[in-house]
Amino acid sequence: MTEKERDWMKLTADAKGTFAIAPTPFHDDGRIDERSIDRLTDFYEEVGCDGVTVLGILGEAPKLDAAEAEQVAVRYVKRAKKMQVIVGVSAPGFATMRSLAKASMDAGAAGVMIAPPPSLRTDDQIVGYFKQAAEAIGPDIPWVLQDYPLTLSVVFTPAVIRKIVMDNPNCVMLKHEDWPGLEKISTLRGFQKDGSLRPLSILCGNGGTFLDFEMERGADGAMTGYAFPELLIDVVNLSKAGKRDAAHDLFDAHLPLIRYEQQPGVGLTVRKYVLQKRGIIASSAQRKPGATMTATAKAEVDYLLSRVARFDKRANLGPQSSGAG
Amino acid sequence: MTEKERDWMKLTADAKGTFAIAPTPFHDDGRIDERSIDRLTDFYEEVGCDGVTVLGILGEAPKLDAAEAEQVAVRYVKRAKKMQVIVGVSAPGFATMRSLAKASMDAGAAGVMIAPPPSLRTDDQIVGYFKQAAEAIGPDIPWVLQDYPLTLSVVFTPAVIRKIVMDNPNCVMLKHEDWPGLEKISTLRGFQKDGSLRPLSILCGNGGTFLDFEMERGADGAMTGYAFPELLIDVVNLSKAGKRDAAHDLFDAHLPLIRYEQQPGVGLTVRKYVLQKRGIIASSAQRKPGATMTATAKAEVDYLLSRVARFDKRANLGPQSSGAG
Amino acid sequence: MTEKERDWMKLTADAKGTFAIAPTPFHDDGRIDERSIDRLTDFYEEVGCDGVTVLGILGEAPKLDAAEAEQVAVRYVKRAKKMQVIVGVSAPGFATMRSLAKASMDAGAAGVMIAPPPSLRTDDQIVGYFKQAAEAIGPDIPWVLQDYPLTLSVVFTPAVIRKIVMDNPNCVMLKHEDWPGLEKISTLRGFQKDGSLRPLSILCGNGGTFLDFEMERGADGAMTGYAFPELLIDVVNLSKAGKRDAAHDLFDAHLPLIRYEQQPGVGLTVRKYVLQKRGIIASSAQRKPGATMTATAKAEVDYLLSRVARFDKRANLGPQSSGAG
Amino acid sequence: MTEKERDWMKLTADAKGTFAIAPTPFHDDGRIDERSIDRLTDFYEEVGCDGVTVLGILGEAPKLDAAEAEQVAVRYVKRAKKMQVIVGVSAPGFATMRSLAKASMDAGAAGVMIAPPPSLRTDDQIVGYFKQAAEAIGPDIPWVLQDYPLTLSVVFTPAVIRKIVMDNPNCVMLKHEDWPGLEKISTLRGFQKDGSLRPLSILCGNGGTFLDFEMERGADGAMTGYAFPELLIDVVNLSKAGKRDAAHDLFDAHLPLIRYEQQPGVGLTVRKYVLQKRGIIASSAQRKPGATMTATAKAEVDYLLSRVARFDKRANLGPQSSGAG
Repeated sequence: MTEKERDWMKLTADAKGTFAIAPTPFHDDGRIDERSIDRLTDFYEEVGCDGVTVLGILGEAPKLDAAEAEQVAVRYVKRAKKMQVIVGVSAPGFATMRSLAKASMDAGAAGVMIAPPPSLRTDDQIVGYFKQAAEAIGPDIPWVLQDYPLTLSVVFTPAVIRKIVMDNPNCVMLKHEDWPGLEKISTLRGFQKDGSLRPLSILCGNGGTFLDFEMERGADGAMTGYAFPELLIDVVNLSKAGKRDAAHDLFDAHLPLIRYEQQPGVGLTVRKYVLQKRGIIASSAQRKPGATMTATAKAEVDYLLSRVARFDKRANLGPQSSGAG
Repeated sequence: MTEKERDWMKLTADAKGTFAIAPTPFHDDGRIDERSIDRLTDFYEEVGCDGVTVLGILGEAPKLDAAEAEQVAVRYVKRAKKMQVIVGVSAPGFATMRSLAKASMDAGAAGVMIAPPPSLRTDDQIVGYFKQAAEAIGPDIPWVLQDYPLTLSVVFTPAVIRKIVMDNPNCVMLKHEDWPGLEKISTLRGFQKDGSLRPLSILCGNGGTFLDFEMERGADGAMTGYAFPELLIDVVNLSKAGKRDAAHDLFDAHLPLIRYEQQPGVGLTVRKYVLQKRGIIASSAQRKPGATMTATAKAEVDYLLSRVARFDKRANLGPQSSGAG
Repeated sequence: MTEKERDWMKLTADAKGTFAIAPTPFHDDGRIDERSIDRLTDFYEEVGCDGVTVLGILGEAPKLDAAEAEQVAVRYVKRAKKMQVIVGVSAPGFATMRSLAKASMDAGAAGVMIAPPPSLRTDDQIVGYFKQAAEAIGPDIPWVLQDYPLTLSVVFTPAVIRKIVMDNPNCVMLKHEDWPGLEKISTLRGFQKDGSLRPLSILCGNGGTFLDFEMERGADGAMTGYAFPELLIDVVNLSKAGKRDAAHDLFDAHLPLIRYEQQPGVGLTVRKYVLQKRGIIASSAQRKPGATMTATAKAEVDYLLSRVARFDKRANLGPQSSGAG
Repeated sequence: MTEKERDWMKLTADAKGTFAIAPTPFHDDGRIDERSIDRLTDFYEEVGCDGVTVLGILGEAPKLDAAEAEQVAVRYVKRAKKMQVIVGVSAPGFATMRSLAKASMDAGAAGVMIAPPPSLRTDDQIVGYFKQAAEAIGPDIPWVLQDYPLTLSVVFTPAVIRKIVMDNPNCVMLKHEDWPGLEKISTLRGFQKDGSLRPLSILCGNGGTFLDFEMERGADGAMTGYAFPELLIDVVNLSKAGKRDAAHDLFDAHLPLIRYEQQPGVGLTVRKYVLQKRGIIASSAQRKPGATMTATAKAEVDYLLSRVARFDKRANLGPQSSGAG
């Protein structure tokens, strides 16, 4: 890719659609599984994702050392043909954040994503942190602000988000996963109507649990790890096309499984189990410390898949013969 | 009621079925609305609840002063004809806990519920706290252990729950609302199979979000605040009758609304809105500090109700003319 | 006392000097010890305290039920002849806060003190909470804002304190116990110099651990529970008189004991032990859940007292014959 | 150094004395200052420290990227002639922990130190984490368990510490900085008397604030960052020699400064300021995000130094002409 092409791929506030949050595939012994990274990337492109976000919380990023993190990010970036790749660069310190951000962008990433460290409390601390983080990665890298209080224990008011966005021209996207969060989207879109907030892409997480209404509130799309990104894409598209009932009908068919995946900690095991069952990743193993699925839990997921498949054939993964996990 | 009758009503480890978590109805100006308490109690009995739990977290208990808390508890207890009433007595100190527990039991409550204070961290601190709490309320009051880490930030392992139950003969029930929590139920039931845990009723909360599988894992029923307790009752009964698909079909029809109600903080506003819409409570007002619903949120709930009503006529609340809240 | 006299006693932003934080004395069996309350009150007046604050965190307030809390507050208020009495009214709900505030003021208290509930996170949440609390207690009661992040886990920026003070005319005093906190005092006094903050009394807590420098930074005095309030009074007075070295010399002689008392949780046991040793309270018992002192810890305190006594005779509590509990 | 010599230097449960917690010196522009590392190392050896711990919380470890962390650790290790060097390897993931531990030991470190991640809550989670961490670094590396609940928010009971030590033969030392923590030392030493805990070195942190009594309770020495390690060494030695009053006299002379340094966050700025004033490090700069000292704070520290110098000439740093950063 030429320098010019890469620039064309950079993330902007116009981003919309569905960005899959990618897990990091490991072999059973904990080594990074690069071929599964390739298959995952191809899969996301084939089903129509607009982008993929790697090394997020779901991606077991903290379990990788610095060299491995760069290796995974570059592998995804190099493999993606037309999707934008966003690399999670959250780190306890700015030196590590800067190193990974630079390496990722050099390889052709579209942007990076930054979450707040859990110690932040006051509005000023939050605003100050992101100002320093933006300085650390430098003036050329577009970045995504991650708002995920349930896991990160840092609470952003809409006004704080606005201040961060207005202070930092390179902050082009909000990964929205506050809970509850519907009114937050409405408030931010209201800020834009009253002229106090510049354009900002809002993609929604939380496993997709509220994607149906998030789209109606003004979100630009989804950025989450549900094991059927096809569903996210369809709901986003139906909603944008104004087909409300159809969007909800499809969404509701998947909700029992979405809900099951959205369990903290357990969610990743379920997603890797389903992605393995779909033949995309070779192993559902997590690096330590990681959770495992009981046979009962696997049977519950299989049952949910069979129920989803009554409405959505894509969930028909055939006989439960995968031998997964 | 005679002393003997009241004893018959006391909570035991055999408890099962559906216990509604009741909100506390207020007038628009914040005064307690006793007539709505009466209507709520009658409603829960008419639809077939086995019990009702009052002054829980949903019940805005901390917003009442001591006299009001006793007033609300006694009103529910006196009104209930055949349901068991459990009174939440969690308090920062044992003196307050004891006062309310005694007054409630004197009025005819079946038992009390105790949540851990957020400061507890180690296993020993948790076990020690409940030992002292049990001493504080005295040897004659059956009580429910509330396990709700998302809100209370105290994490109970299954072994800690077992120790609390084995240490305290009056602990007869677990209000289970860990998240994720399915494996916890299986582990506790396993303890009983291996003989290390005595009989214990397990009723599940979390707004009912996992009731379908919780029943299959061995729960005895539901204890939560979903605004259609009829659904909880039906799912519990279908599941007990072994009608798995039917239980899930009905559950799934309600899940979009269950999910909407389960939003932290927002949930209570939705429940009061729906209960008011159903004509059961006069006002959806909360005491300060409380949340309110935007018109958009109300319209979302109305839409969800209309969708549920396609499968479950009980959710057909007629034209959206309630003028609620 | 006439209504007029009581008004004269009301707390204002001019308050200064030393306010003792009083423990709540109990009998060994956990009953409130009213005669010890009287002796404590007399003692604080005799040594020259300007005020006393009751039912604070040190006062085991959450362990009392509503009737007991009122009983303790009123007993202190009635016994005090010339000291101002401030009553801690922090509570999970505004109804309880209002009841105790009203009862205390009716009995003749000078004001009340309010701490934030631990759930508050954002600046707006904090400001909003105190606005509602001020409305709850009504327009006639002066109140103290308690800033104690170590224990309460709520972090106030200086700008948030300013907003609370400017929003609420009855907020006349800051109980300052942030840690570190010296720059906070300087910043607030700077706000007053630049005209953005109205007069505000600042009294310092944290067991007195930084009282030497807090006075130099502009504090108006001390409000804390060190078992030798005489030391606090002397340091405050020496500092105000500009006798810097003398203030530090006396302070430093006590610092080893101040430090020992400032241990979280343990501090109260030490203070009750010393106050009992001084013959002021009858028992060092705490209500459950409470800590106890080992013989080793008592011997350590005795040793520290003997060392302080080399410089300050008031710490000479005679032979270690107290038989204290 | 030969392989054999390095083995002789490995940390064991017999370790005692004073281990300085070393800051990481930076140039004003944030680059690592290797010459100051050398001077610091020499200084610690010259005053008689038994060891030095690098890349701890005080060492701004999270602000370094992986390559820098290794660079700093190796520089300290290579420079130390006779002191044991312990390297803090706490990290969000085991891969990073293992990489740094291996590189440090290869260079000649005596052992590593591991702190718990803040997410741990239950006893089982804590025990399980350290089992996995020990597996991650492998069977040949002695390690120090860091118990620091104030900053890390993880609470270890004495029984949990015992279990970790008994489960992991390479856990040879406890860095004790619970607060309060005196009874914890007594309890652990009691476990050893009753035979349930094997030998374990206990070195104490918390800025030295309780070192006087910690030694009397059975600690083996100090491991903390007070800017006068000479004082720590003297107190440890006087205490071991049974010279109780002399130990306290010297300790008390320093306590006002120890207390000032022990302020969270601020402490590091004070220590770097004093070490720069002593001519050991070239700049007091911290990497971002970092605190700075106001002129008032510097003057307070200068005043405290002048007061300490009345008793301990080593604190006489001459005219306040350092021009320190």
